Amino acid sequence: MTLADIEPLTQDEFLGGRLRVWQPRRGYRAGVDPVLLAASVTASAGQSVLELGCGVGVASLCLAARVPGLTLTGVEMQADYAELARRNALENDLPLTVVASDLRQLPHDLRQKRFSHVMMNPPYFNRQAGTASEDIGRDTALGGDTPLADWVDTGARRLAPKGYIWVIQRMERLPETLALLDGRLGSVVVRPIAGRDGRSPERFLLCARQEGRAAFQIAPTLIMHEGPSHQGDTESYTADMRKVLRNGASLPIRP
Amino acid sequence: MTLADIEPLTQDEFLGGRLRVWQPRRGYRAGVDPVLLAASVTASAGQSVLELGCGVGVASLCLAARVPGLTLTGVEMQADYAELARRNALENDLPLTVVASDLRQLPHDLRQKRFSHVMMNPPYFNRQAGTASEDIGRDTALGGDTPLADWVDTGARRLAPKGYIWVIQRMERLPETLALLDGRLGSVVVRPIAGRDGRSPERFLLCARQEGRAAFQIAPTLIMHEGPSHQGDTESYTADMRKVLRNGASLPIRP
Repeated sequence: MTLADIEPLTQDEFLGGRLRVWQPRRGYRAGVDPVLLAASVTASAGQSVLELGCGVGVASLCLAARVPGLTLTGVEMQADYAELARRNALENDLPLTVVASDLRQLPHDLRQKRFSHVMMNPPYFNRQAGTASEDIGRDTALGGDTPLADWVDTGARRLAPKGYIWVIQRMERLPETLALLDGRLGSVVVRPIAGRDGRSPERFLLCARQEGRAAFQIAPTLIMHEGPSHQGDTESYTADMRKVLRNGASLPIRP
Repeated sequence: MTLADIEPLTQDEFLGGRLRVWQPRRGYRAGVDPVLLAASVTASAGQSVLELGCGVGVASLCLAARVPGLTLTGVEMQADYAELARRNALENDLPLTVVASDLRQLPHDLRQKRFSHVMMNPPYFNRQAGTASEDIGRDTALGGDTPLADWVDTGARRLAPKGYIWVIQRMERLPETLALLDGRLGSVVVRPIAGRDGRSPERFLLCARQEGRAAFQIAPTLIMHEGPSHQGDTESYTADMRKVLRNGASLPIRP
């Protein structure tokens, strides 16, 4: 696939306009999840960050916009999305190197590197269990063929000693995710994400650490929207969410 | 050990006085956890319930007090606690059969039975990892020698088709608990329990079902106390908690 295959494109604003990102109008489109993922990563200037499955680069670019002085590498299997990610990095003047590669077969030089942080927003649906969409790009991003085990395995292998892995995923895959980390990474913290107060959290942010030995912890739930239901067409995000989405604030996984 | 070994006893009220329970003054003393466990079990008249590690019987007796018409069996390894559980059932006129047995070696007739519900409040601490207390009874109840795997295994084996298992446990053992259920029981629901709103939940209630096929779910967190910190010597339980602890209300795991 080439870039022409995923046109027409739209240019969308993230972080209150700090970031302008090209993405396919009809393919997989980044929502709030990569923004939340990037906001949770505790990277600081001078550290290296690897994103697995970076798509058009929203999470990595959000992180680069918030934390200056990082070295960021994004891996994206779909060449057209990788090309868009490079263009987005260039136009936003942010330091993201994009590698077009299957994360299960990383190029040799990447396999020699270790990163302070690895972040990922793996497909939410199990391809085998669902119906394929008509759009191949969107389909791959939402329910790719790469098993979650390969995402976690590749991420763990690329971590520097005491490095952190960051994941955002659907809640129903929490048991599977914990099982994949078991005996491998420690100090696991899970922050559930609920649409509204009193609702069941449908997604989670997770952090785990290479050589971590702290007990498993669930952090207080992140609430996305104010009130019990959607109020007309006004933006209903909570104040904390607005700070993250519009002002580019960080989002501590343990508030 | 005989009953004389765990004297002196105290007689304590549960469910706003509906239940009066003898327990050792110095040994393991039941707090709110067995009450919450019993309140969550969705048993109805005519069903059978097995409690593993019933201690002096608080959870089973709370459940019997709330739901008439159940057939309840409690298994307790420590003979003196089992004897107290029998006495508590008798004095409260509630139908609990107590079997003094190691749950890993249940008597033959119990191994022939299947139950609609199995509930358990296994020790919160891993005996191997901690320091033994001076009181053997309390020590066994808080951090027994029986691995969590044996609790879950015995519970799962005793479940009738489509039966439910109910567990209350410390949050740091959630990954271990989920791993023990994996591939064995399904439709897992976890309800985190936090001391106060905005705090990290430190315990959880869990329900899983024999032959269950629903996706894993985390329910909204149960908040125990009102306000940001303890206010003098007034009871600070939330209204929902007071209904459960004082009025004997049920506590849906999915509110």
